[in-house]
Amino acid sequence: MKVLLATLVAPVASVLMAIAAQAELKTQLVDYKHGSAILEGYLAYDDSFQGNRPGVLIVHEWTGLGTYVKERAEQLAKLGYVAFAVDMYGKGIRPDNPKDAAAQAGIYRKDRKLMRDRVTAGLSVLQKNPLTNAEKIAAIGYCFGGGTVLELARSGAPVAGVVSFHGNLDTPNPADARNIKAKVLVLHGAIDPYVPPEQVAAFKKEMNNAQVDWQLISYGGVVHSFTNPEAGNDPSKGSAYNATADRRSFAAMQQFFNELFQP
Amino acid sequence: MKVLLATLVAPVASVLMAIAAQAELKTQLVDYKHGSAILEGYLAYDDSFQGNRPGVLIVHEWTGLGTYVKERAEQLAKLGYVAFAVDMYGKGIRPDNPKDAAAQAGIYRKDRKLMRDRVTAGLSVLQKNPLTNAEKIAAIGYCFGGGTVLELARSGAPVAGVVSFHGNLDTPNPADARNIKAKVLVLHGAIDPYVPPEQVAAFKKEMNNAQVDWQLISYGGVVHSFTNPEAGNDPSKGSAYNATADRRSFAAMQQFFNELFQP
Repeated sequence: MKVLLATLVAPVASVLMAIAAQAELKTQLVDYKHGSAILEGYLAYDDSFQGNRPGVLIVHEWTGLGTYVKERAEQLAKLGYVAFAVDMYGKGIRPDNPKDAAAQAGIYRKDRKLMRDRVTAGLSVLQKNPLTNAEKIAAIGYCFGGGTVLELARSGAPVAGVVSFHGNLDTPNPADARNIKAKVLVLHGAIDPYVPPEQVAAFKKEMNNAQVDWQLISYGGVVHSFTNPEAGNDPSKGSAYNATADRRSFAAMQQFFNELFQP
Repeated sequence: MKVLLATLVAPVASVLMAIAAQAELKTQLVDYKHGSAILEGYLAYDDSFQGNRPGVLIVHEWTGLGTYVKERAEQLAKLGYVAFAVDMYGKGIRPDNPKDAAAQAGIYRKDRKLMRDRVTAGLSVLQKNPLTNAEKIAAIGYCFGGGTVLELARSGAPVAGVVSFHGNLDTPNPADARNIKAKVLVLHGAIDPYVPPEQVAAFKKEMNNAQVDWQLISYGGVVHSFTNPEAGNDPSKGSAYNATADRRSFAAMQQFFNELFQP
């Protein structure tokens, strides 16, 4: 009888240990600097994974570093990545209304050098983390952050790939695409009024002219902010969550990562 | 010692059995009819899978049913699907030069009712196969075949999804998109000269107007026929194989199938 119990207990114990191991998500606010600016990013990783691992840089929407991208960082950490959500605006600068958000985003959208340097400061934090395999880093971003990771790529940053979710695709300097070393994946709502067909066409031309390795997925009937439940459910407003496109775009990103980070 | 050997032999035997099981690919030419036309399709399935399973209909390029789509059928059979490559042209009609291929394809492209009815005759063969789960059928096609599976969808056919690889996207009857029940995935070379941006834009408008569940992936720097090694390696000719886009598009199709056929 004791033997029987032991054979039962051992698997149960190992299941419990596996559950405990899965739950070792570590998160931490990280202060860092860019010039005189104090920034506060958010790091997430799973302590049950061993050794260094691919890193994912995450750039927030125009509202700044908030719950949404923190949850994305945690989601990626659970998949085995070191995830670092950067702070583009500065510690405590978290606009809570469209006017202030547009003003903050505008600072960086109008000054692409500042945008690049600011996001590169965040990249540096991730690169230097001892858990990160610095040869295997991707950058992803949402809306404003999607445009930012494309700008990071245009700076020639040593990232394996960038993924834009409903991001702006415009650039004042299309010729800079020649600097791009990263593979590029753009996930786009086909009727996103903030990223209209002319902008998409100009982006494709920019990428083709520079012979970038790029892909763009259009999701039919989908508008801006489709990955964010906070965007609500009314597409007529131009921004709305779409659960199907959210799921599909996350899966497309994972497949892209599998290609980038294959052993 | 005997006990030790037994513990060694059992796993080895089961590995060998698994290899043998994987190899049970069955293929067969299938004669069938559409009106008075005699057609010869190609069926492939893996006999080591049990029970009925999702079916994939495959429509050939303008050269007709040949080695290329037969190999695709076998590839899909090994993944666990019942695959049926249809014959659009008629038994023995296998054009071996562009002029004859264009003439054959033109017959069906100019008569969309005939195209729909002809491909539906092939669908019927797959639906009736006892190995097929008729509730779970997708249709895929290459070039001419990509256009054909879109036309099948526009006919209102009861397929869960259709996938076009470098297919034509045009239609004389955009309003027919309202009949579409299938989810639609289009895999497109971004610089395909045979499917130019105006055709892509018209297709998107057609799909959006009819509120179809559609997705379109553009592959940067990629021309027509990108999945077919027979297309050669010179993109300046407008058609060329692209190994990366081939791999990515196949993976996108698999992900799409996973969504369509989830239990």
